[in-house]
Order: sequence, then C-alpha cells, then structure tokens
Amino acid sequence: MKKVRLGAGTYLIPMPVVLVGALVDGRPNFLTIAYCGVVSYKPPMIEVGLRKGRYTSAGIRENGTFSVNIPSEELIEATDYCGIVSGSKIDKSKLFEVFYGELETAPMISECPLNLECRLVQVLDLGGTHEVFIGEIVETHAGVEYVDGGRPDTESIKPFVFSASDDSYWGLGEKLAEAFNVGKGFTNG
Amino acid sequence: MKKVRLGAGTYLIPMPVVLVGALVDGRPNFLTIAYCGVVSYKPPMIEVGLRKGRYTSAGIRENGTFSVNIPSEELIEATDYCGIVSGSKIDKSKLFEVFYGELETAPMISECPLNLECRLVQVLDLGGTHEVFIGEIVETHAGVEYVDGGRPDTESIKPFVFSASDDSYWGLGEKLAEAFNVGKGFTNG
Repeated sequence: MKKVRLGAGTYLIPMPVVLVGALVDGRPNFLTIAYCGVVSYKPPMIEVGLRKGRYTSAGIRENGTFSVNIPSEELIEATDYCGIVSGSKIDKSKLFEVFYGELETAPMISECPLNLECRLVQVLDLGGTHEVFIGEIVETHAGVEYVDGGRPDTESIKPFVFSASDDSYWGLGEKLAEAFNVGKGFTNG
Repeated sequence: MKKVRLGAGTYLIPMPVVLVGALVDGRPNFLTIAYCGVVSYKPPMIEVGLRKGRYTSAGIRENGTFSVNIPSEELIEATDYCGIVSGSKIDKSKLFEVFYGELETAPMISECPLNLECRLVQVLDLGGTHEVFIGEIVETHAGVEYVDGGRPDTESIKPFVFSASDDSYWGLGEKLAEAFNVGKGFTNG
C-alpha cells in the first residue's frame, strides 16, 4: 500500500469519550476528554490525560479520587458542553444528578449508563501539554437497565467515540466478531 | 437512574484496537491490544499497556522504538490472531508487508491504513499485571487512499473497537456530530 506522511499527530482513531468527575472546592465538576486508556487488568487501573491547568486537576489532587463516566448517545450535547466550558467559569454541578460510591469524594453522573470510581495512584508529567492521572478502578456502577448477565450491555449503553481526524463524534455500529476467537483459524494465504 | 455495583473491572467501553509493532531479535513482531491512549497533544504522545512478560516488550526496550498500527475491519481476523498467538511461538514477521520510517527500527504494517511511529519515552510499572510504554509519535503514515485533505479519513479507514463487556469487536457507525460544537447551545432544561 502506498503511504504518505502526515507529520507528528495524535491520530489514534477512534478514542473513547468520557466525562472525568472530581470534587473541586467541594463542588462536583465534570470534564469531557478522549485521552484515556486502561493500563492494568489486575488491579484494574485507568489513565486519563488532562491538559495542564485544568480546573478538574486540582480536585483530583485534593481528594485523591476521580470518576470516569461513560455517556450514551443521548447525552452527546451535554458531553460536548462539558468539554467546551471550564468549571472555573461555569458551575457544572447542577447539569446532572450526582451520586457517590465507596470513596465518597468521586462524584459520578447518574444519567451516564456506566461509571468507574477511581482512587488516584499516580500523576505523571511527561513534559508535554498534558498531565496523566492514573487511578485504580475500585468499583463499577451501572444503570440497572444497562446490565446483562452481571456485565455492562454495550448495545443498550450506546457509547460513542471521538475521531481526531475530523474532530467528530461517531456512534457504534454492529458487533463484528468475538475477540480471542475470530482469528483462531487465521492463516496468511 | 437506579444503579447496581458490578465490582472492580476494566469497563472502559469501548477501547481502540491496535497492533503494536516492534523488532524482537531483529525480527518484526506485532501484538494486538486495546489498552492504549493518547497522553499528550504536544508533543504528541501515546501509551500502550502490555501484559508483563510479553514477547514484544523486550523489543521495545532494546530499540527504544515501537509502532501503533490501526487496522481496518478487513483485517479483523489477522488482528485477532496477533492477540491470541505469541511471537515467542509463532513467527509473525511474514503475516504482513512491513515497512519502516525515520526511526528505522519501528516495523509498521503496510496493510493497516494508519501507522503511528513512536520513540520510547518512558516505561511505567504500576505494580499490576501490565507495563505501560509511553512513546512520542514522531510520524504518522497513512495509505494514500485513506487520506482526505491532509488528514486521515475515518470513514474509509473503517477502524473497529473492542468492547470489554462482551469481549467482542464492534464496527463504527454513523458520524453523529461535530465535537467542540454540538454542545455549544446546551442548556440544562
């Protein structure tokens, strides 16, 4: 395949879209990001990359906790809004119904089908534009109608993703195949 | 919304699916993972989480380089295969057409529409099952037919994602909305 060089860029396509929640000065705040990834299976850990100086960061540091909230398509406007407007200018604490789990200081969004409650493990400064907050996922909270057989139900959750190529949100399509299975019979020609 | 607790888990839904490439003992090897995320916009940096003891890890350490290759739906069987079978048992160097970029030691998959060429910046041991390799993305390589206006074209790339809830791959659906835009007019009721 003929290739062209597009320069250095952040074209991991697509990325998840999540709202990071934290208590800032005692008030729930939520920031939408796409820079995040699981970094350990056991114990379950996740990282979120936040631009330095974000309002949310101080709250994560102060409490040592944060949440990762996965929105459904229906929340796309509210989700985008929380990525545009800073909590330093607008009070986002009333945008959603907020609940707390065992850590008590990680605010979570009731309207999101899935919520990961995290204890801060480490903050990483790589010298670039962002800081990386690594958290252990201590509990998963899910809306009862978004659970099937004790696990989240991706089809009803209807998560969406971010594409850095066109700065757009895309929905999920069809389930294509089982992982760790569809490739079992693969042979190269 | 009534919530239930599902326990600690890695339910970031969905996650990207990529093949991590490295030269191991001078031979190209590719490992499929879903634990990855962008961690800095400038300079562009990405992290990949690899289970400790992976064959690929030694190659990344040895050369200080790796690649992140984004497969299209058509490569789903080969992609899954590279997540099932270890390079310590099977020679994966002939599965794909391999090319190199400016770093010279980060093997990339020609059949993948998009390739991120990375210089290793840091390796992180969080004490869990995985190690985190952080790389600076020094170049983006794209198939000419997958580029539109100097940027990758998500629709033709046809990436797919991993859902940890059902251990399945899902395709992308429709473009839903412009990011940093659709939420501009959002008001809460």
